[in-house]
Amino acid sequence: MILINGQPDNRIPVTDRGLQYGDGLFETLAFRHGKLEYLNAHLQRLMRGCERLGIGFADRDKLEVELATVCAQTAEDSVIKIMITRGSGGRGYKAPKEAEPLRIISSHPMPDYPESCQQGITVRLCQHRLGINPGLAGIKHLNRLEQVLARSEWEDDNIREGLMLDINNRLVEGTMTNLFMVHNGQLITPAIDENGIEGVMRAEVIKLAGRLDIPVKETALTLTDLKQADEIFLTNSIIEIWPVTHVLDTDLHWPHGTLTRRLQSELRQAER
Amino acid sequence: MILINGQPDNRIPVTDRGLQYGDGLFETLAFRHGKLEYLNAHLQRLMRGCERLGIGFADRDKLEVELATVCAQTAEDSVIKIMITRGSGGRGYKAPKEAEPLRIISSHPMPDYPESCQQGITVRLCQHRLGINPGLAGIKHLNRLEQVLARSEWEDDNIREGLMLDINNRLVEGTMTNLFMVHNGQLITPAIDENGIEGVMRAEVIKLAGRLDIPVKETALTLTDLKQADEIFLTNSIIEIWPVTHVLDTDLHWPHGTLTRRLQSELRQAER
Repeated sequence: MILINGQPDNRIPVTDRGLQYGDGLFETLAFRHGKLEYLNAHLQRLMRGCERLGIGFADRDKLEVELATVCAQTAEDSVIKIMITRGSGGRGYKAPKEAEPLRIISSHPMPDYPESCQQGITVRLCQHRLGINPGLAGIKHLNRLEQVLARSEWEDDNIREGLMLDINNRLVEGTMTNLFMVHNGQLITPAIDENGIEGVMRAEVIKLAGRLDIPVKETALTLTDLKQADEIFLTNSIIEIWPVTHVLDTDLHWPHGTLTRRLQSELRQAER
Repeated sequence: MILINGQPDNRIPVTDRGLQYGDGLFETLAFRHGKLEYLNAHLQRLMRGCERLGIGFADRDKLEVELATVCAQTAEDSVIKIMITRGSGGRGYKAPKEAEPLRIISSHPMPDYPESCQQGITVRLCQHRLGINPGLAGIKHLNRLEQVLARSEWEDDNIREGLMLDINNRLVEGTMTNLFMVHNGQLITPAIDENGIEGVMRAEVIKLAGRLDIPVKETALTLTDLKQADEIFLTNSIIEIWPVTHVLDTDLHWPHGTLTRRLQSELRQAER
């Protein structure tokens, strides 16, 4: 089911600035066991993104009603995607003052990942590098060509994710996930200041670690740091936590380690 | 008039990856005196962009027929915009193998710039910086949030353009134009290797300078270089060449100089 500004539809105006310039934001939520998980965190990030881009989106209440409508039509566990664009505007980068933001809510099948992903996955290193762009770092905007190009590098679905370096050799994230490493009992995750997305699950894991008295550091990471890691895992709202046990074509191997197991177990029991 | 895959229409599927990820390219052409100017150069850049993004667009012939159809419906001088997206695909960055690229052609009123722009304009320096992204540099893709944010910094239409620095303080381009400076009879323009768009008019001016035996250098530029310039001008396919005579809130002033005048005059007479 797709709702566009509250109406069932599956097309948008060609004049929409989401299409013309990627002028908008999105969120990807898990709808599981009849619940939209981490709804408030997702909507808060969406509002922060609107603020960063200067999109005057004021319809959070409407959006929540429409999310409920879509979810009511959704029998099974699903992925719910929200997009907010700046709306339609004439040709040219200048946004018209009268632009009315467009809201799109769609439901999608939950990906059929094998249960074994919870015990460990193989990833690869992407050739395509992330750029450096502090002005857009953190937010989940619609300018996602870097991820599209990185994800186009492999076909084999047994390689579950690709890790991305940036042009300064900083290890930033996966194409669709945030990255964590465990080192000497500490949790370390790349800082999201020059590029990367501030994932909702990333924030949840950081909060959870705080409650469990596990120290967390956000900092610049490189491949050398990865080599010294005791455990590695990836996060997003759909997969939650996937341990990484191998990087393809390297001698990098890690166990499905104690701290990752503990976080997975605690996360399963946590309020969402 | 808008043609989408050859049919008059004004809406696209919400599943189109142009909307979902900015996964596509565009061109902006001038239709003047019954002619689509620099058509071959635009289509060649479009094809190079498709190749860079791995979009298997093979319908150049169809596109040319459709452009002729749109232009035949267009009585006055107009701006013709072409968009090519990767087409519709499921949720997720991975592009489906079977994606059929979407072609959109639309006509728009020619902007009503005053004649005085040909003698000189005032520009401003944008706060928003361009990122560094060699993997996407040069091509005219649909990830244009940087330009949207920079263009949102001012309202006064008497300020005709904003110049953009990148995060390393390199002066790269205007929000919708390429930049040239004249220094000691030489033409200097920012290299398009780390960011920026390889403009069709930029290439035409470089070719024209070659024919006129004016030396051209493509290199990294900074604000300091700008201060030493004898003349400055901006280019794009719609405005052609606009001399810059002042940068707002600075003591930077330049004349509508001899070399700029010569290029404007020669360009008016050149084959297009």
